[in-house]
Amino acid sequence: MDHSEAVRFLGLLLAILASARMVGYLAQRIGQPAVLGELVAGVLLGMSVLGLVDAHDKVLYFLAELGVVILLFEIGLETDLRKLLHVGGAAAVVAAVGVVLPFVLGYAVCIYLDWGNLVAVVVGASLTATSVGITARVLSDLGRLQDRESQVILGAAVLDDVLGLIILSIVAGLAAGQEVTPLLVAGTTAKAFGFLLGAVVLGTLLVVPLARWKPLGGLAGTTTTMLAVMFALGFAWLASLAGSAAIIGAFAAGLVLAKVPQTHQIQQGVSYLAGFFVPLFFVLVGAAVDVRVFDPTNPANRQTLLAAGLLIVAAVIGKFAAGYAPFRFHGRKSIIGAGMIPRGEVGLIFAQMGLSAAVFDAATFSAVTAMVMVTTFIAPPLLKFLMARNGRNAQSPSGLDQRQTPSETTAPGTE
Amino acid sequence: MDHSEAVRFLGLLLAILASARMVGYLAQRIGQPAVLGELVAGVLLGMSVLGLVDAHDKVLYFLAELGVVILLFEIGLETDLRKLLHVGGAAAVVAAVGVVLPFVLGYAVCIYLDWGNLVAVVVGASLTATSVGITARVLSDLGRLQDRESQVILGAAVLDDVLGLIILSIVAGLAAGQEVTPLLVAGTTAKAFGFLLGAVVLGTLLVVPLARWKPLGGLAGTTTTMLAVMFALGFAWLASLAGSAAIIGAFAAGLVLAKVPQTHQIQQGVSYLAGFFVPLFFVLVGAAVDVRVFDPTNPANRQTLLAAGLLIVAAVIGKFAAGYAPFRFHGRKSIIGAGMIPRGEVGLIFAQMGLSAAVFDAATFSAVTAMVMVTTFIAPPLLKFLMARNGRNAQSPSGLDQRQTPSETTAPGTE
Repeated sequence: MDHSEAVRFLGLLLAILASARMVGYLAQRIGQPAVLGELVAGVLLGMSVLGLVDAHDKVLYFLAELGVVILLFEIGLETDLRKLLHVGGAAAVVAAVGVVLPFVLGYAVCIYLDWGNLVAVVVGASLTATSVGITARVLSDLGRLQDRESQVILGAAVLDDVLGLIILSIVAGLAAGQEVTPLLVAGTTAKAFGFLLGAVVLGTLLVVPLARWKPLGGLAGTTTTMLAVMFALGFAWLASLAGSAAIIGAFAAGLVLAKVPQTHQIQQGVSYLAGFFVPLFFVLVGAAVDVRVFDPTNPANRQTLLAAGLLIVAAVIGKFAAGYAPFRFHGRKSIIGAGMIPRGEVGLIFAQMGLSAAVFDAATFSAVTAMVMVTTFIAPPLLKFLMARNGRNAQSPSGLDQRQTPSETTAPGTE
Repeated sequence: MDHSEAVRFLGLLLAILASARMVGYLAQRIGQPAVLGELVAGVLLGMSVLGLVDAHDKVLYFLAELGVVILLFEIGLETDLRKLLHVGGAAAVVAAVGVVLPFVLGYAVCIYLDWGNLVAVVVGASLTATSVGITARVLSDLGRLQDRESQVILGAAVLDDVLGLIILSIVAGLAAGQEVTPLLVAGTTAKAFGFLLGAVVLGTLLVVPLARWKPLGGLAGTTTTMLAVMFALGFAWLASLAGSAAIIGAFAAGLVLAKVPQTHQIQQGVSYLAGFFVPLFFVLVGAAVDVRVFDPTNPANRQTLLAAGLLIVAAVIGKFAAGYAPFRFHGRKSIIGAGMIPRGEVGLIFAQMGLSAAVFDAATFSAVTAMVMVTTFIAPPLLKFLMARNGRNAQSPSGLDQRQTPSETTAPGTE
């Protein structure tokens, strides 16, 4: 990188941060979560509109990756493991049904469209994803992370992310023409769940007593925060190496550090890093949208739009119905279903895999991408709408959630 | 960037942050500023030792660039413009003598070594640089940013950075065989100083009243911090575009925001971002060192080491003597001279320019690089030593400087 390139990146970073803030603020003004505005800012900056932000740029991609890692770490820090385990049964049911049902519906749509068996499997798989990042951020924006419904969503979304990785490795094998044995599936599954379990148990046994060690209590806030961030990056890195996902590792690190005496100090410090990095992730997700796919005046798009429409219906119904799966859970099941709808970056990874393995042609890729985008964009306003109707259960946002403090919620005009 | 590359960067980032913390901590344990440890960590991780960190990597380079921008913003926030202007005369004299004297001495060494006129000019120019980043960080590590000597160093170092840019553009013109007219020199000079002056004056007139606007007072700390960081990135970007340097723009932004009611809130928030980004810069400066140049068992190095030795003497004497130039300034002039010695990344930019313009051969490049490295590494312990002797003038570190709080200074063992 030479000097002029560094200058260009500085300008680009500024454009991303400023537009994310601005459009995020406008979204809040019309009563929507800020994340919706950040996604829209990304679409505007992306290659198909202003052409400023290339979602595949190496530097921006890595900054965005750091953003989602820090977001999941922050969410983990706010999550009470006991509460999460308490709703674990319901979350597991939602996750399982939320994988099987969208897969079957997506598969059926493809067979109806006469797309062939392999294409139907990969499309079905791309419908199983849940973007824990989008969902968690919306819940955080709304100050509702501590609701029981939110705990179910969070647990199910994390499980879905693990399941999604398993499905991705199996489907990638199928797409490459490999034989997929039950042993391979079992091994992948054991690895993915094993890491999450092992990280939380070992981390808790080792880190919680260490954090009570007296000299560590006297550290400056910046030092404690950086040690915590390095712990999260370490877990994220190990999770990636172990065949799980970086964000699962970061979430596990957050769960562990949610139980140390310095939790509040760490939450505060991380909120500043999150303020910088997290919007970069959502802007890059938005920048991956190619709005030209949605142009109905182009005849080539009509078949794609029809397919996309059917897939969107399958994707929404599949996840929404999954929210009603845990019969014994008392709470607003519509909220759970709505929280599982956004496919976000996870859906894009599936679509990209299908394209690069030459299973998808351009039209199929566009239809799947459109499904990912629509499910991602409808979830924030839908959750907001359903939660507003459910106001009586509202809890006040925790001290951590400084992205939207109570004063900002009640009087957005003062910002 | 694909998935495996993102994982590799995550591991690399972790290695950089962790080793910077660890070696920085060890440096503090032996009574040295943490920045010295971070530079050493960089040398160890660099291509000539462990081979992990490539200083020219695009992603790391940009993160490091953000690090030095945030550092100078942080330093600007801690700087009282009136105090700085109060010692402005002394700073200007130090800057001027600190450019002329090292240039003349470096030129003389080259002529003595029979290196030719053009080489002598470029080598002389590379001796004029001062790394405001290294110096400011050492003063901050030692909790002495508010000393009068420190204000002179800071002012002179900033002026030197501006002068350095002017010299760089002139010398680059000479190296490329262009004619350098007085008009060109005057234009470059006007642009460089004009930006600094214009940014501070306009910024103060516009931003300080705006910051007192009531609704802005009720913002969350993370929001205020991010607005301030965007302001700094904007100034850094504009400075680059205007032909000045990004760090000059960031410093000017800090000077402006040092006068708003939210300064303390911003300082606190920025300290968390600095804890993440700033070490990346110093590790990358360290990683640019090729230790093989210093191997005396290789006969090819001996001539280079002799030349480097002479250049180091010229570089140290030139800047150290400049500290004694302001006759009417009352204070420890040895501290001022010592503070001007490190060439850091600015010296490397000159060396790189000489190499890429084919003015330097490999041996000359190595000698200049060795001069840059030695001056960079001796400045932190030298300043620490001179300041310890000058303890009676010490002021307590400001609340901002959380990298080394009083408790850490007195009892490093508790960390």
